[in-house]
Amino acid sequence: MSTPVSNPAPILGVDIGGTKVAVGLVDHQGKILAQGRQPMIANGTAEAGLEAVLTAIGSLSAKSTFSAIGICAPGPLDPKTGIVLNPPNLPCWRNFPLAARIQSHYSVNVVVDNDANAAALAECRWGAAKGYRYVFYATIGTGIGTGIVFDGRIYHGNTGAAGEGGHVSIDYRGPICACGKRGCIEILAAGPAIAKRAREKFASGKRPSAILDLAQGDVLSITSEMVGKAYASGDPLAKEILLETVALLLPWLGNIVDLLDPDIIVMGGGVAAMLSPFFADIKAQLPPWCVNPRASEVPIVMAHYGSDAGIAGGAALCADLT
Amino acid sequence: MSTPVSNPAPILGVDIGGTKVAVGLVDHQGKILAQGRQPMIANGTAEAGLEAVLTAIGSLSAKSTFSAIGICAPGPLDPKTGIVLNPPNLPCWRNFPLAARIQSHYSVNVVVDNDANAAALAECRWGAAKGYRYVFYATIGTGIGTGIVFDGRIYHGNTGAAGEGGHVSIDYRGPICACGKRGCIEILAAGPAIAKRAREKFASGKRPSAILDLAQGDVLSITSEMVGKAYASGDPLAKEILLETVALLLPWLGNIVDLLDPDIIVMGGGVAAMLSPFFADIKAQLPPWCVNPRASEVPIVMAHYGSDAGIAGGAALCADLT
Repeated sequence: MSTPVSNPAPILGVDIGGTKVAVGLVDHQGKILAQGRQPMIANGTAEAGLEAVLTAIGSLSAKSTFSAIGICAPGPLDPKTGIVLNPPNLPCWRNFPLAARIQSHYSVNVVVDNDANAAALAECRWGAAKGYRYVFYATIGTGIGTGIVFDGRIYHGNTGAAGEGGHVSIDYRGPICACGKRGCIEILAAGPAIAKRAREKFASGKRPSAILDLAQGDVLSITSEMVGKAYASGDPLAKEILLETVALLLPWLGNIVDLLDPDIIVMGGGVAAMLSPFFADIKAQLPPWCVNPRASEVPIVMAHYGSDAGIAGGAALCADLT
Repeated sequence: MSTPVSNPAPILGVDIGGTKVAVGLVDHQGKILAQGRQPMIANGTAEAGLEAVLTAIGSLSAKSTFSAIGICAPGPLDPKTGIVLNPPNLPCWRNFPLAARIQSHYSVNVVVDNDANAAALAECRWGAAKGYRYVFYATIGTGIGTGIVFDGRIYHGNTGAAGEGGHVSIDYRGPICACGKRGCIEILAAGPAIAKRAREKFASGKRPSAILDLAQGDVLSITSEMVGKAYASGDPLAKEILLETVALLLPWLGNIVDLLDPDIIVMGGGVAAMLSPFFADIKAQLPPWCVNPRASEVPIVMAHYGSDAGIAGGAALCADLT
């Protein structure tokens, strides 16, 4: 899309999380040339949080010129103004003008967007969704974040808050999500739900399973990672748990397909990686959950970027600008 | 958007249903200048179905010139090619090239789209959503059809099948919809669901209600219209039934808002009219069903076009072309 003839300076991508700031220099083909990481100071003052980000940026800016800074951060934030609103895991910032404050230190464009939107754009521009026009991206880990990219642009909606697919409910009388809604796919199928499902299997009677071995017999310490490891080692109970999770993703993806009619679904995050052996099954089992007669044709693929999704995503936000 | 300086000929809007073909001449301000209607021959040959549509068009084309023909029909159909695929209530047509066949009779552009998409566009161009950029339209009657209009254009998605919001499920273990999915809002909250809900109230014990009077004591003959009439006359049981229906629309609209972040929600159809006294309540009760912090700001309004939505919708499909 924006492969340049001349070779402009790389973009500096920044991925701000609750505990770390990851930074990377990304070229215009989406290749990460260098990267670094700093602890994030999420619970201090706004200025201390900003300082942590500036330190991370500084560690790379000394090494190379760059053409723009793209930042992804946990929402809610306003991508139009670059103001971070009130993210639960960044208590340091409340209505904080992140883009403007960074811009005052570097004379380049600074763009801010939420992490799932940015990662979706990176997949569209350089990754698994390259060449696709109607992209639905979901990152499944401890939560479920999603992003929608139409014709190479993030779909933001009216207030910049569109694409919150993790909080689409498929069970209006179901369990209450952290967001307060009932039956969101996040509370039903993200990492903590998988761990909880495993714990409940053991609570209803002892069964031999590699999961319990990995948890050294302590049911309460079971994590979704242990379920994934147990599945990889051939554990039947772990498979049962993952299939129950897949069964919940079907009505959710059916809703997405019937509303958005995507030409590709890209999945990222640790839980998605764990579920990737079942993607072919999901694709095959999706049609009964869709009125769209061509639902079975929608590719469901793993994201190209793994743990670097945030850095690539930040950079992708700026790839049009330079 | 397309108010002309010169005064081009009106557009001929055609609304094809299972039992009738309605036609109208629509000016470029969305005003219906003349209209007519013919029975649709839905169960005969493809040619007999086409003949019914041509007769309806002919009844108006004798009266005035027109600049284009816009047709809305029940889906599924392919808006890009104007081919009607396999609509359940138009068995006469299977992969029928409707646009091309009509075009061979009249030397003007012919555009075909599904009825909810077309009605959404008419609202956006001339009706309740004029001036809005991210429009979600739902027509609630015997079914629920929806349409999405972004920046004045119907959002079709990859295969032309986007915007099937009536088949977004909020209850993956719920009742089976006519489409085969479980818990679609259509099976939970459209007219037949309201009638069923009323019948069940009486099945679980006789209660005095204007609904039963309107049905002349015959529980099995209760319709959603009777519930609406009973509510209008102050019947408490009818109010209870409509409030239960509203309670189901909340998680559904919450899903729509969190995914699409619309700047307006427009409702059309007989059941929506019946529920319109509760729109203010829906707006007030929506925030707990949305992660979008500005959900309470989204206007929820009745459509401008009532029973003429199909004619206006057909015409709206062509308003860019002339």
